[in-house]
Amino acid sequence: MDIVPAPTSARHAKAVGQRRGLVIVHTGPGKGKSTAAFGLALRAHGRGLPVQIYQFMKVPTARFGEHRAFEALGMPIIGLGDGFSWKSRDLTHSAELARGGWERAEATVRAGAHALVVLDEITYPLRYGWVPLQPVLACLRERPAHVHVVLTGRDAPQELIDAADTVTHMGAVKHHFDAGVPAQRGIED
Amino acid sequence: MDIVPAPTSARHAKAVGQRRGLVIVHTGPGKGKSTAAFGLALRAHGRGLPVQIYQFMKVPTARFGEHRAFEALGMPIIGLGDGFSWKSRDLTHSAELARGGWERAEATVRAGAHALVVLDEITYPLRYGWVPLQPVLACLRERPAHVHVVLTGRDAPQELIDAADTVTHMGAVKHHFDAGVPAQRGIED
Repeated sequence: MDIVPAPTSARHAKAVGQRRGLVIVHTGPGKGKSTAAFGLALRAHGRGLPVQIYQFMKVPTARFGEHRAFEALGMPIIGLGDGFSWKSRDLTHSAELARGGWERAEATVRAGAHALVVLDEITYPLRYGWVPLQPVLACLRERPAHVHVVLTGRDAPQELIDAADTVTHMGAVKHHFDAGVPAQRGIED
Repeated sequence: MDIVPAPTSARHAKAVGQRRGLVIVHTGPGKGKSTAAFGLALRAHGRGLPVQIYQFMKVPTARFGEHRAFEALGMPIIGLGDGFSWKSRDLTHSAELARGGWERAEATVRAGAHALVVLDEITYPLRYGWVPLQPVLACLRERPAHVHVVLTGRDAPQELIDAADTVTHMGAVKHHFDAGVPAQRGIED
């Protein structure tokens, strides 16, 4: 029988004490990058920590399950995008919107009023070249020491991984889309 | 520039329509297995779907952030364990408790009253030999067609991966514990 450590490890128990904000990255092609960020936001909220969630790829009017649930918790998700992608018609507008969104998110991270700031799907505007990487790295470096930042999206730049405290690579071992099973309401959205 | 697909893909958009329950597995050594399950539960709850979350490694009295937040949402997490691990002193009692917990979870999955059932950290009692795998696979096979089940934990058995629709392997690219940074309240618990 293959013995695996229990999830609450001794090094965890021993470690509790010193506190500082973490930079956490969820990347890779698999499911769970954003949902794990939402789970962290929920956990932090449950501990009474002020949390702000920004989504770089969603429109402000998005009403997926997570938007409805976080709204019910009094911590609405803020959509910074126009649903743009690299296939968008008006890339100039999308790029401007993404830069404006980053300025807003950066101000929140630097202000330090929120213990956790989620930058969901930020790797896409980074990869599309709409938001430059260096100011993002500088913001993470210079942020108030207590602020946790979670950044999600496929194909995180190596410099971002280098700058992070904790990085999880979500690998797609198997995906129901590939078996012809469509998106499921309440699961994919 | 490395072009990556936008998170809401065409195959997703095209796929919407047919509905059926999914078996989703979050495994691997990285962070995010349970938090991604909590994010899915939150999303489903936001869509008005009835959700039940069971935790096989947590005591019923656990009061981590997720317990407080889901309680506030009116969907309390049910802890089925005694905080046991393979290091527990009284393994007989832990094994009995795990089997009783599985019976309770199985009844919920088979009843079909919940659109989503989360079996958090179930791979540990499976790996410790406290809950036999075959009844779990039978329950997943025979469950009502509309029921989504999310199973989490390290080192998921291959038969469980084979039975799943969607499997994400959370790989630990980097972990702050390994840099001597301790657990952070509201992030780890």
